[in-house]
Amino acid sequence: MRGMARWRPGSTGRLQQAAIELFTENGYDATTVADIAERAGVTERTFFRHYGDKREVLFAGQQEFQASFVGAIADAPPGTTAMDLAARALDAACHALQEARGRDRARARYAVITAHAALQEREQLKLAVLARAVTGALSAHGIPDLRARLAGDLVVSVFSTAFERWIAPGTTRDLVDLQHEALAELADLAGTVTAA
Amino acid sequence: MRGMARWRPGSTGRLQQAAIELFTENGYDATTVADIAERAGVTERTFFRHYGDKREVLFAGQQEFQASFVGAIADAPPGTTAMDLAARALDAACHALQEARGRDRARARYAVITAHAALQEREQLKLAVLARAVTGALSAHGIPDLRARLAGDLVVSVFSTAFERWIAPGTTRDLVDLQHEALAELADLAGTVTAA
Repeated sequence: MRGMARWRPGSTGRLQQAAIELFTENGYDATTVADIAERAGVTERTFFRHYGDKREVLFAGQQEFQASFVGAIADAPPGTTAMDLAARALDAACHALQEARGRDRARARYAVITAHAALQEREQLKLAVLARAVTGALSAHGIPDLRARLAGDLVVSVFSTAFERWIAPGTTRDLVDLQHEALAELADLAGTVTAA
Repeated sequence: MRGMARWRPGSTGRLQQAAIELFTENGYDATTVADIAERAGVTERTFFRHYGDKREVLFAGQQEFQASFVGAIADAPPGTTAMDLAARALDAACHALQEARGRDRARARYAVITAHAALQEREQLKLAVLARAVTGALSAHGIPDLRARLAGDLVVSVFSTAFERWIAPGTTRDLVDLQHEALAELADLAGTVTAA
């Protein structure tokens, strides 16, 4: 035993859970860091060890989320086409998300975000950053710049389309299944191009 | 003549020009509404008649910009495919943007925005709102929901890809030409899908 540091397993998970509960019950603006810490059973100091402010709690896990897309691209065999790399990234991320967060929790988080312009702005930037991370991974895999840029956007478009359908009220369909449907639809859509 | 109201033509244009100049010269944070009004040769009261704050000046004209996409879709003949509607919207908006704002002004605005996380967030939300407006116009034109959603994202992806290449240092290529190239690349990319 060295010192008095109390390490409590799962405090970030409890903080995230507490924050979403309180934002849903009392609204985002009315909820304080003190409220979140109390509900999670930790001190405010512990809160600030993990997050800069209450907004950050809603955007925790972005690194891991992004890594699930990027890692799938990095692990693919050399010579894999851009579209197949996109499909691999989407499969990996959708599987990971579905396992890590339940649909109900994703729904609650999304409802908090869509109710606030400032949170929506943050969410959109998060998706834009994700698109550029995917673009970077595709470039590193040898995909030319313009194609990598467009494929990065495509991955985020297919992901967020599938995600929004997954958390729509009453939906019971699987996220991976919805993602396959969206990707196939996009391929069909883009394939119908005629003359510019 | 009725009363003392001084109507000065082009005050919004001068305010936008003044704001971008000052943001570029002194930085966004160091520039005040008073500075912008003074440079534009108007009162602060005139500033606030047009804009809620200094951030809004950077995002002026979004309605017209969005209308150039949406109007092109609404005006297309019935039965036009989703991809052809997307191409029409992109052509109309790129022509309009290139005529309304010079490349140098677009470059200066973009540099101010990319230097600030909060402005980037606002810009990304603007693009997300644009994507959903395009989706709405496509739905109104009879395109099914899933396809309209993906095509809305596709339009914004192609537009912003072309736009960023247009304002890149040293570029002299036409925005419409860059947009055609990006759309053709995306069609080729998405057409290479194999099995999911």
